[in-house]
Amino acid sequence: MHIVADENIPLLQAFFADQGRLTTLPGRSIRREHLLDADALLVRSVTRVDPALLEGTPVQFVGTCTIGTDHLDLPGLATAGITVASAPGCNARGVVEYVLSCLLTLSERTGLPWRERRVGIVGVGEVGSRLAATLGALGVECVLCDPPRAARGEAGFVELDALLAQVDVVSCHVPLTRNGPDATWHLLDAPRLMALQHGTWLINSSRGPVIDNHALSVLLAERPDVQVALDVWELEPQVDTALLKLCALGTPHIAGYSLDGKLRGTEQIYQAWCRHRGEQPRLTLQALAPEAGCAQLQFSAETPAQWMLEKALRQVYDVRDDDARFRAMMMPLAGQSTGAAFDTLRKDYPLRRECPQVRILHADGEGQAALMAAAGFNV
Amino acid sequence: MHIVADENIPLLQAFFADQGRLTTLPGRSIRREHLLDADALLVRSVTRVDPALLEGTPVQFVGTCTIGTDHLDLPGLATAGITVASAPGCNARGVVEYVLSCLLTLSERTGLPWRERRVGIVGVGEVGSRLAATLGALGVECVLCDPPRAARGEAGFVELDALLAQVDVVSCHVPLTRNGPDATWHLLDAPRLMALQHGTWLINSSRGPVIDNHALSVLLAERPDVQVALDVWELEPQVDTALLKLCALGTPHIAGYSLDGKLRGTEQIYQAWCRHRGEQPRLTLQALAPEAGCAQLQFSAETPAQWMLEKALRQVYDVRDDDARFRAMMMPLAGQSTGAAFDTLRKDYPLRRECPQVRILHADGEGQAALMAAAGFNV
Ligand SMILES: NC(=O)c1ccc[n+]([C@@H]2O[C@H](COP(=O)([O-])OP(=O)(O)OC[C@H]3O[C@@H](n4cnc5c(N)ncnc54)[C@H](O)[C@@H]3O)[C@@H](O)[C@H]2O)c1
Ligand SMILES: NC(=O)c1ccc[n+]([C@@H]2O[C@H](COP(=O)([O-])OP(=O)(O)OC[C@H]3O[C@@H](n4cnc5c(N)ncnc54)[C@H](O)[C@@H]3O)[C@@H](O)[C@H]2O)c1
Repeated sequence: MHIVADENIPLLQAFFADQGRLTTLPGRSIRREHLLDADALLVRSVTRVDPALLEGTPVQFVGTCTIGTDHLDLPGLATAGITVASAPGCNARGVVEYVLSCLLTLSERTGLPWRERRVGIVGVGEVGSRLAATLGALGVECVLCDPPRAARGEAGFVELDALLAQVDVVSCHVPLTRNGPDATWHLLDAPRLMALQHGTWLINSSRGPVIDNHALSVLLAERPDVQVALDVWELEPQVDTALLKLCALGTPHIAGYSLDGKLRGTEQIYQAWCRHRGEQPRLTLQALAPEAGCAQLQFSAETPAQWMLEKALRQVYDVRDDDARFRAMMMPLAGQSTGAAFDTLRKDYPLRRECPQVRILHADGEGQAALMAAAGFNV
Repeated sequence: MHIVADENIPLLQAFFADQGRLTTLPGRSIRREHLLDADALLVRSVTRVDPALLEGTPVQFVGTCTIGTDHLDLPGLATAGITVASAPGCNARGVVEYVLSCLLTLSERTGLPWRERRVGIVGVGEVGSRLAATLGALGVECVLCDPPRAARGEAGFVELDALLAQVDVVSCHVPLTRNGPDATWHLLDAPRLMALQHGTWLINSSRGPVIDNHALSVLLAERPDVQVALDVWELEPQVDTALLKLCALGTPHIAGYSLDGKLRGTEQIYQAWCRHRGEQPRLTLQALAPEAGCAQLQFSAETPAQWMLEKALRQVYDVRDDDARFRAMMMPLAGQSTGAAFDTLRKDYPLRRECPQVRILHADGEGQAALMAAAGFNV
């Protein structure tokens, strides 16, 4: 087997070294002549892959370690009979931890216990379903809205307006779509924003234009009871600093930006490759991932489980850090272009790990282990 | 030996059980008749101790597990030949950790590295000297101002106005005094506040009236470059919510409110008791203190020392938590009495531990162990 891969795929050697010969190249410079004896091509978002690139090569498998597939000619590759794999949901866990950190922070600022809030999840795909599972395991009541899934006959979903009328928290996890009955562009428009319950917490880590940002500014100027956390912005990377000022939390589209999310992209492609070869995957990310900076927390047995949970979640990811850095960069740019600063914050994003990479020791007091495991820690 | 003590002194049994017979009573109900065969009396702030209380009793030692001694008739007890001990500085470490957390937070919000700020310490007693030592160990340059110590011939101090002209951070640690050349009432008055350098961080965890709060409001309305953290308020427990709104951080006089501070009060009285008896103290707080809720953090060897330091400091004490709870309680009370809410926040203060109670494992990468030890962790 000969595998050609983008040199920037992390843990490539660890997962693929014993799958055959491995050639790594800068993603932007991969050409047809590199693939003349290749069986598989592994890419990230910078390599455009279409039938022309693979013509006359033995490549049968194309894997992209990203959630997006815009850089792949899917119909063309399908017609050519080539197996294509991407990594849907690889960064979903990061977004879940982002939302948890928003809940902790808004809870502290409002004095309202976050585990007693009813959370409305709008869009129940890779991210939304994991968020619902984690919150459910933590005993948080969730209300789900996903018309496309409901239309496929799946049960358990409500209409968006019905959701807005009964929840304390709204968290958006829809794709950005502009056409069709379920278009999400300005899904939360002025009338729906005005309909938010008193004291609602609104979190958007999906795509900026899903919320009408102008209408949101108008709402917040009148409704200080509403607490908003935005990771995504309508005119991103341009940020409306007046809106940011009205938001409880603001961040530069980094909700899913953990190292583990990227590594999981490689793991998912490895798993797809094993399936393609009819083999059982032997390697796991949990075993291969580098140790987290803070790898282990030891609590004492009498520690209240809730305190322990919040301390550990804060240790792994604290949205207040990202919010402070974002405001420090953005607010002085009021009235100017924020694009370069926005991109710099994303490019220089600090190394972030996820709960499963943190071992919790001595969690054997009442309810401790169960709660920590529910949140996703390695107990 | 018979020791009579306030039942609310923590770790009393652990420190004093083998010193003789121990009688514990509610502090407010201790009377002369309880002391008729007592050799020592250990109190907190609620028991008034004067020669009349001890008359005709064998009590030779009075210890108060508090920094204050207002409840003791010191001249009267001295005249009666009784040894008196208090616990000066027992809560100083908590204040140091409070100031460190303010520095971390203001650093993140302004984008200015806190270890590169020049810190002016005004008042270099129990708290100020420990702060200077800790910051010095962390490589932070400090400028010290303490006219009473300078007047006693000690070197290394500058005048307040000279200090204000050359520092990036001002942290106040003076007592509140209204008379004499070194009176601290409105020590930072309008002219001195106006003289603060551009971008100064001002932290007050000493006593509210040390800063003219009205002049501070006027300053902050014009000088958004100045970042203020207030733990103490001029009309405490009444809080000027308009001033709080202008402050970067606000808390309800809890800078020194760690459990370890209270326990250290007992340890200091135990040490004084041993001195009084001509014995070597055998017991230490480090050995007797209950384990911290999060007792141990294990970092991986490649972790940058600065990241490790900040994560660990945040884990032990995060002023953002206290600030959020304080604002949530105070801001809705704008224009009303804040006294009851202020006192409730202090009475129901969450259990807080200190860095020395947290073990840091595997800090053997370059500079890690030294830096963590400098901050006061148990490495
Ligand atoms: N901020 C970040 O760092 C970050 C990270 C990962 C994903 N995202 C974004 O989060 C969103 C969700 O990602 P995902 O991986 O879960 O996508 P997904 O495609 O797996 O899930 C989206 C879900 O939304 C549903 N949906 C579509 N239209 C809807 C509508 N009108 N109302 C309600 N539900 C609707 C779909 O049926 C689907 O179940 C996407 O916009 C993605 O770009 C952001
Ligand atoms: N916020 C809290 O929770 C908390 C906790 C502990 C102490 N405190 C307060 O912090 C302050 C310091 O406490 P401490 O235990 O270090 O007191 P301390 O008496 O040990 O030290 C005070 C120092 O200030 C110096 N000083 C006096 N007048 C001065 C002046 N005009 N200018 C500069 N220095 C002057 C003194 O010489 C002394 O060295 C006190 O006001 C105390 O009440 C607050």
